[in-house]
Amino acid sequence: MRDIELNEFERTDDLNRNGYKIIQNEKKFCFGMDSVLLSGFANVKKGEKAVDLGTGTGVIPILLCAKTQGKSYIGIEIQEECAKMAQRSVFMNELENNIEIKHLDLKNAAEELGKCAYDVVTSNPPYMNEKGGMINEYSPMAIARHEILCTLDDVVCAAASLLRFGGRFYMVHRPHRLADIFSSLRKHKLEPKRMQLVQPREGKEPNMVLIEASKQGRPMLKVLPPLVIYDNDGNYTKSVRQIYEE
Amino acid sequence: MRDIELNEFERTDDLNRNGYKIIQNEKKFCFGMDSVLLSGFANVKKGEKAVDLGTGTGVIPILLCAKTQGKSYIGIEIQEECAKMAQRSVFMNELENNIEIKHLDLKNAAEELGKCAYDVVTSNPPYMNEKGGMINEYSPMAIARHEILCTLDDVVCAAASLLRFGGRFYMVHRPHRLADIFSSLRKHKLEPKRMQLVQPREGKEPNMVLIEASKQGRPMLKVLPPLVIYDNDGNYTKSVRQIYEE
Repeated sequence: MRDIELNEFERTDDLNRNGYKIIQNEKKFCFGMDSVLLSGFANVKKGEKAVDLGTGTGVIPILLCAKTQGKSYIGIEIQEECAKMAQRSVFMNELENNIEIKHLDLKNAAEELGKCAYDVVTSNPPYMNEKGGMINEYSPMAIARHEILCTLDDVVCAAASLLRFGGRFYMVHRPHRLADIFSSLRKHKLEPKRMQLVQPREGKEPNMVLIEASKQGRPMLKVLPPLVIYDNDGNYTKSVRQIYEE
Repeated sequence: MRDIELNEFERTDDLNRNGYKIIQNEKKFCFGMDSVLLSGFANVKKGEKAVDLGTGTGVIPILLCAKTQGKSYIGIEIQEECAKMAQRSVFMNELENNIEIKHLDLKNAAEELGKCAYDVVTSNPPYMNEKGGMINEYSPMAIARHEILCTLDDVVCAAASLLRFGGRFYMVHRPHRLADIFSSLRKHKLEPKRMQLVQPREGKEPNMVLIEASKQGRPMLKVLPPLVIYDNDGNYTKSVRQIYEE
């Protein structure tokens, strides 16, 4: 673990994996539980190459590097300041031989990184497709949360271009966009193969969905039991504790 | 309630609704819990006209007639013997002023019954899309369960043709077909608006899915909490008892 200097509003948080830490900026770039759940849902096999689209803090490549035996992990991020912060997290954890953070628009990812060249693509993209209306300037958080610089379809298109035949795309998103998600996946020849809805509690409406799709896969979706976050006492369920701790 | 004569292998079962009964043929035409759940999920408003595609025993129109205040209910069924049996159930319950059973291929439904003329379409279609291979003759049960005489897309296409603008399509199906379902709905301008997965027990994989779509609706899917069938003691949950009894 290397020492690094923190900028204003930055802090480091422990990832509970291999002693890794991550830099977050509470005013601009933070990660949520959704990224952690995606890193538990995604599967990178030994020797595989993975790309994370819109990597933000870099949390997904760092967690995947800790949990899996992939050969290399690339995180691309369109916001330069955020890409630099993620790169400093990689440096801090001495992971620069495993993880590369690139300041890049995901719409140019396949062209820059190579088409059909990756085994796994992950993404926790902006969820919201409401048009802001009169907004002229966007905050870094708005860009991370709203489809301002990329749409769902841009993300799926980029994933499809990067993946080899049979490669796997893992995404976390909102259940109310499921029809858009399935429609976009099929359009780009990514067949939905596994889905898990995430509920805050037993008996409550799901508020996240985890999806795995396979490039040019055969139609047959496995729908997993829902992942429930909190038990009746307000504590994390065993399933969530396993994702955070194991 | 009129008396009727039963044919070989036929029996009558109580529907626990308004004293209604239904004829089933245990060798050929039976209904399952899926149809009962669909009748609880579907909503027919006062004065509305509803069509059930592939009505089988007629259980869905009869239950909807008992539970809702629609103006009329039509059930269409391609298997003539089955259509006649459903018609006898309607006659037995003295519901011939409310429910009409027609021996009809759903692919001709809009042409025969009128395009854009209905408020609600329901269907519990065949679920299985595996090809039978060497099968030359199909049993009545195989026709009800496998996509032999109609595909999922045929059912969705028929529903879209029958419904008025804003009309609602309710379907029960298998979760592993979700990508096919969403794809077919969007293709025919039926927008998925509400979805509920059905789990045999808490923590188990869902084995049914209930879907509501709206003709030319705005994209925004509401995913409900899962419907759980059995509690830990093996009894029906309260949610299921309400559908059966209330």
